[in-house]
Amino acid sequence: MPDVELQIVCCGAALLERYGNVSSVVKTQGYSIAAECWSTIEGANLVTSAKETGVLLQDLSATLARLAPDVAVVCADRHEVLAAAQAASYQHIPVVHLQGGEISGSIDDKVRDAITHLSDYHCVATKRAAMRVYGLTGDYARVFNTGCPSIDLAKQALSEPPVTCPELGGVGPDVDLSKPFLVVLQHSVTSEADQAGEQMRITLEAIAEVPLPRVVFWSGQDAGADAMAKEIRSVRERHPTQTFHAVRSLPPIRFLKLLTQCSVLVGNSSASVREGSYLGVPAVVVGGRQYGRERGLNVIDVGHDVKAIKTAIERQVAHGPYRSDNRYGDGTAGARIARVIAEIKEEGIQPRIREASSR
Amino acid sequence: MPDVELQIVCCGAALLERYGNVSSVVKTQGYSIAAECWSTIEGANLVTSAKETGVLLQDLSATLARLAPDVAVVCADRHEVLAAAQAASYQHIPVVHLQGGEISGSIDDKVRDAITHLSDYHCVATKRAAMRVYGLTGDYARVFNTGCPSIDLAKQALSEPPVTCPELGGVGPDVDLSKPFLVVLQHSVTSEADQAGEQMRITLEAIAEVPLPRVVFWSGQDAGADAMAKEIRSVRERHPTQTFHAVRSLPPIRFLKLLTQCSVLVGNSSASVREGSYLGVPAVVVGGRQYGRERGLNVIDVGHDVKAIKTAIERQVAHGPYRSDNRYGDGTAGARIARVIAEIKEEGIQPRIREASSR
Amino acid sequence: MPDVELQIVCCGAALLERYGNVSSVVKTQGYSIAAECWSTIEGANLVTSAKETGVLLQDLSATLARLAPDVAVVCADRHEVLAAAQAASYQHIPVVHLQGGEISGSIDDKVRDAITHLSDYHCVATKRAAMRVYGLTGDYARVFNTGCPSIDLAKQALSEPPVTCPELGGVGPDVDLSKPFLVVLQHSVTSEADQAGEQMRITLEAIAEVPLPRVVFWSGQDAGADAMAKEIRSVRERHPTQTFHAVRSLPPIRFLKLLTQCSVLVGNSSASVREGSYLGVPAVVVGGRQYGRERGLNVIDVGHDVKAIKTAIERQVAHGPYRSDNRYGDGTAGARIARVIAEIKEEGIQPRIREASSR
Amino acid sequence: MPDVELQIVCCGAALLERYGNVSSVVKTQGYSIAAECWSTIEGANLVTSAKETGVLLQDLSATLARLAPDVAVVCADRHEVLAAAQAASYQHIPVVHLQGGEISGSIDDKVRDAITHLSDYHCVATKRAAMRVYGLTGDYARVFNTGCPSIDLAKQALSEPPVTCPELGGVGPDVDLSKPFLVVLQHSVTSEADQAGEQMRITLEAIAEVPLPRVVFWSGQDAGADAMAKEIRSVRERHPTQTFHAVRSLPPIRFLKLLTQCSVLVGNSSASVREGSYLGVPAVVVGGRQYGRERGLNVIDVGHDVKAIKTAIERQVAHGPYRSDNRYGDGTAGARIARVIAEIKEEGIQPRIREASSR
Repeated sequence: MPDVELQIVCCGAALLERYGNVSSVVKTQGYSIAAECWSTIEGANLVTSAKETGVLLQDLSATLARLAPDVAVVCADRHEVLAAAQAASYQHIPVVHLQGGEISGSIDDKVRDAITHLSDYHCVATKRAAMRVYGLTGDYARVFNTGCPSIDLAKQALSEPPVTCPELGGVGPDVDLSKPFLVVLQHSVTSEADQAGEQMRITLEAIAEVPLPRVVFWSGQDAGADAMAKEIRSVRERHPTQTFHAVRSLPPIRFLKLLTQCSVLVGNSSASVREGSYLGVPAVVVGGRQYGRERGLNVIDVGHDVKAIKTAIERQVAHGPYRSDNRYGDGTAGARIARVIAEIKEEGIQPRIREASSR
Repeated sequence: MPDVELQIVCCGAALLERYGNVSSVVKTQGYSIAAECWSTIEGANLVTSAKETGVLLQDLSATLARLAPDVAVVCADRHEVLAAAQAASYQHIPVVHLQGGEISGSIDDKVRDAITHLSDYHCVATKRAAMRVYGLTGDYARVFNTGCPSIDLAKQALSEPPVTCPELGGVGPDVDLSKPFLVVLQHSVTSEADQAGEQMRITLEAIAEVPLPRVVFWSGQDAGADAMAKEIRSVRERHPTQTFHAVRSLPPIRFLKLLTQCSVLVGNSSASVREGSYLGVPAVVVGGRQYGRERGLNVIDVGHDVKAIKTAIERQVAHGPYRSDNRYGDGTAGARIARVIAEIKEEGIQPRIREASSR
Repeated sequence: MPDVELQIVCCGAALLERYGNVSSVVKTQGYSIAAECWSTIEGANLVTSAKETGVLLQDLSATLARLAPDVAVVCADRHEVLAAAQAASYQHIPVVHLQGGEISGSIDDKVRDAITHLSDYHCVATKRAAMRVYGLTGDYARVFNTGCPSIDLAKQALSEPPVTCPELGGVGPDVDLSKPFLVVLQHSVTSEADQAGEQMRITLEAIAEVPLPRVVFWSGQDAGADAMAKEIRSVRERHPTQTFHAVRSLPPIRFLKLLTQCSVLVGNSSASVREGSYLGVPAVVVGGRQYGRERGLNVIDVGHDVKAIKTAIERQVAHGPYRSDNRYGDGTAGARIARVIAEIKEEGIQPRIREASSR
Repeated sequence: MPDVELQIVCCGAALLERYGNVSSVVKTQGYSIAAECWSTIEGANLVTSAKETGVLLQDLSATLARLAPDVAVVCADRHEVLAAAQAASYQHIPVVHLQGGEISGSIDDKVRDAITHLSDYHCVATKRAAMRVYGLTGDYARVFNTGCPSIDLAKQALSEPPVTCPELGGVGPDVDLSKPFLVVLQHSVTSEADQAGEQMRITLEAIAEVPLPRVVFWSGQDAGADAMAKEIRSVRERHPTQTFHAVRSLPPIRFLKLLTQCSVLVGNSSASVREGSYLGVPAVVVGGRQYGRERGLNVIDVGHDVKAIKTAIERQVAHGPYRSDNRYGDGTAGARIARVIAEIKEEGIQPRIREASSR
């Protein structure tokens, strides 16, 4: 099996302090960055989402022409990822797509499927996703069920030391993370961006009625994020005596460790259904953001309703941790994906284009 | 049925003189242009294809935010069209895609299917395309087999006066278009852009061996176009006594009329299989660019081989015109598409996004 | 004198919540926005400054082509303004530049002079600026000393009701604004962006030694802003018993009113020397950001040194308010500028380009 | 004197076949290209000029951040060059500007002076230009009169073998270049872009009345170029029996050699006044494009008038070659510029920004 050389291109939010500075994390782990593409346009609304994809596509076109990789590996379903798949596929650089074939109930579905169609090889996370990608592309030999790399991290997290409050950073009163507490992580649903603030308000109001300390994460960078941040600041002022500890972000593995410690994960993060199913985290999923995504028994779904959210949290607190579920992988996805890339390189990588000569 | 107001956005090659200045044609027909997006980056290579999509996406993001249409109508499979579908769908403007679901044997397939996934409604050209879009999107109610608008034009062309040589413009000796002649229209295949010049050379060499006057069109704007133009200039110099009349472009309807007059259409234009099947034009399709596209009996496919091309041309000259074939429509697509848009507007247009509330 | 119609194009930071949402302020005052150009790239470093100018120039090119104004009015010296002057002048739209000819001691000087050279008419703020623009362009008839529009606002501020603490918003303990207090507003100097955090730390440390409540503004959007924000958060935690009230922004006129109420304005804002000279605000200017700018007697300049800053603040507290100084205008600049534009429109606006026919 | 390492960034037209593919020429001469920035937007009008500057600025921002040069060397006055100066100066990379301080009578003047203001060191072509840059920047120590590098080439051209007709390439009847002939090179004046076609028609009509063979160059890439190309094609058809040989371009040194062979250079190329003064080429400059540029005795200026152009050509034919004039340099500019860069590197390169610490 041939060696594979890695070139990392960091784009958009991966370069930004307020989203955990993934670029620095990568460097800290001993990898070098082949290129940085600053592309996030401030405003976090629907226009800037579209426009920043254009900025990124313009930049990545030149960057990929310069780096000239054998394959481009892209992951998941953000709009920036479609730009990467375009820059590569328009230049006939074969694209390996991770985490295609899933359904999650928002515009992400459209973008994810569009990326699948621009891609040449597919390393999917679940059996159902494999079947769906096969259905879309009709090319069975290029679909590999490797499991999701996020489960590799989840597995590692099991043997990590517990997260402590000082490690969280952020603002607000201390939380003793060796005792029961809630974690809240709720993102904006892009098709409901104008309701993002109100949705956050409802979740926070429900949380306020459960007598456990709360670790609340600021939302990601999509349209609506500013309104959600406003609600977090507001709930802390409305309930000054309650414990709301607001956190920017944690390194992914530490975040997963935190999930193994919490009583319930509340919100609409994909971690509820994804790593959560492997880690057996009791989760309350609010609203439709994970609609359509495969899930284990650890999840209770509720609408944007204070009472429903509160009741579901109470049920999960009473239940406690769930058994581990392997549907998103067994913690060996990284090695399997590397093997897929090495093997297709050995066989001669081919873009999925029907050639005249094959007739 | 409600009225539908039309806003036309002209982008990329539609603004350029050397591709027939579609923008001017549109204005001449009495329509106004709501926005012009200059985006074509000179160079016509794979990097510029990717990069100009980024330029266009940046521009269209602001343009669609400003125009705020109820639906965006996009057509076919060029990389620029994916930018339009992104700019609209990221902003939750429902997308109506024309001519999706087809297969034509190049990167266009990937782009066309990616556009299908970003789109919400589909007006397809054939029964087979309808089935394929349904297979990809799983939503039967949003797929409409309207036929292809290009067949509407083809139908109109039947009642047009014949094209005469002065109308062609261009350079080279006169051709009497009321007598037998060949038309050559060959585009670069983007996945074989480096061979585009050689492929053109072979076709022109075959043509040179058939004793009929030749009307040769300059190629489109894709990577490889410059090399092909060089071959056209070169063949004219190698065969100074033969009739090679080189033409920039014709208004679409006049081009279709010309096809009804010619003995054989040679090259790889989609007009061979598309309007050609309706018009019954004897066609020789060279190479794989139309591979996978549905076709009628009027087409003979050959590889890039001087002798094969020559033989096929001779067979088509001997056969003469074919019977009309309706597989791409019966000439009423425009009216049907307008009706689809009016009806979906009446019903309340919805992006194809699974909503939380619909659960 | 002909009427002048106004079209407002809001770009970059003018659209962003965290810089006071100038766009909304404009709408609130009854003006409509002709176009919005989202262009600020997150990261606030030197690369993003350059790149976002490119994004803006790309967008403004199309925007000005569409709006087709008789003249484009641009103001001051930010890098975004150079993009506006380019988009206009390359399209032969005459440019009226406000606040040219000044010197302020950073890259702004280069950008401001570059804008002067792309401009056709100049409405400057001071007599010295008029002489300098004349020196650069050699065209006396196109230079108008109108005074600075910011002084118009300063004049209005005099008759406004006082600012109260709730109006400030922001975080931190209440400040009684009818009693003595300090205002701190310090921006990053782009050529010293890597020292921005340390410079802010020094200023805040000096402030902490003066026994007056402090109203501290978050810095603007330039490279280094993130590091400065970190220092503001840090000083509040190091001195939990002191009054540091941190404020995002105020509407300009309210900010100027606040200056008339404070004991001393500390930092490097141009308001110290500009509106401050008209309003007679005791000011301590820290570091070189205003170096070269004309100033009245109300300013004491100091280096980045805790002790020097502290001593200067104490001197200004002891001195109290200064007499008004008209060097930046007398509060009628807006009307004068409108008149200049109306008159040049009447005379026939001409780009400052030497024409062949004029020889 | 320290060594200087060269990194070449090829942008815009330098990458395009139809402008002589400078990029290939550079590689042929043994240099490697550090980066290629495709940025020319097709259309050649005022909007695309502005927009492509934005595309280039976006790209160069990332490119210069990656290459991190000690100094950026930029040349002359095209709008693309302003983008390069912005990308460098905004990132505090000192800029060395060649050929600043001149006056040539179009928007180029504005752009050239704007570049001067963003630049830190100036290697100018003439004594008068040195004085003008000093007047603009006020910093004598950073202005170096090195002469123009184009004169180095002109000097080399003197010892080259003569150009022959096959070397010209292009289309049209053969011209015996050892006998008297005219050279025509006329560009669009951007402020008169809509008249570019008509201006070219007039020049070509005048040329047609002089009984000498004509070598006509296609125009550059500015707005109006398409209209001018149309006129060249048209004159060849109107005068089928006359010798109009149309040429795309020559390598610069061969073009200069050609000038030493021709009877008269007609048009508005800067070569008339620049290299022409050193080479003593009889020149007729049509229109205002070189207005304001220093010139030797070899130039006769005329307006856009058939008769005036014809008369001036006849006078120059009668006069024959002029004496060499050194006002634009003596052929050693390249070496002098390299020495300036090496010396400023040795002294410690500083951007021209007034620092706080220097007070």
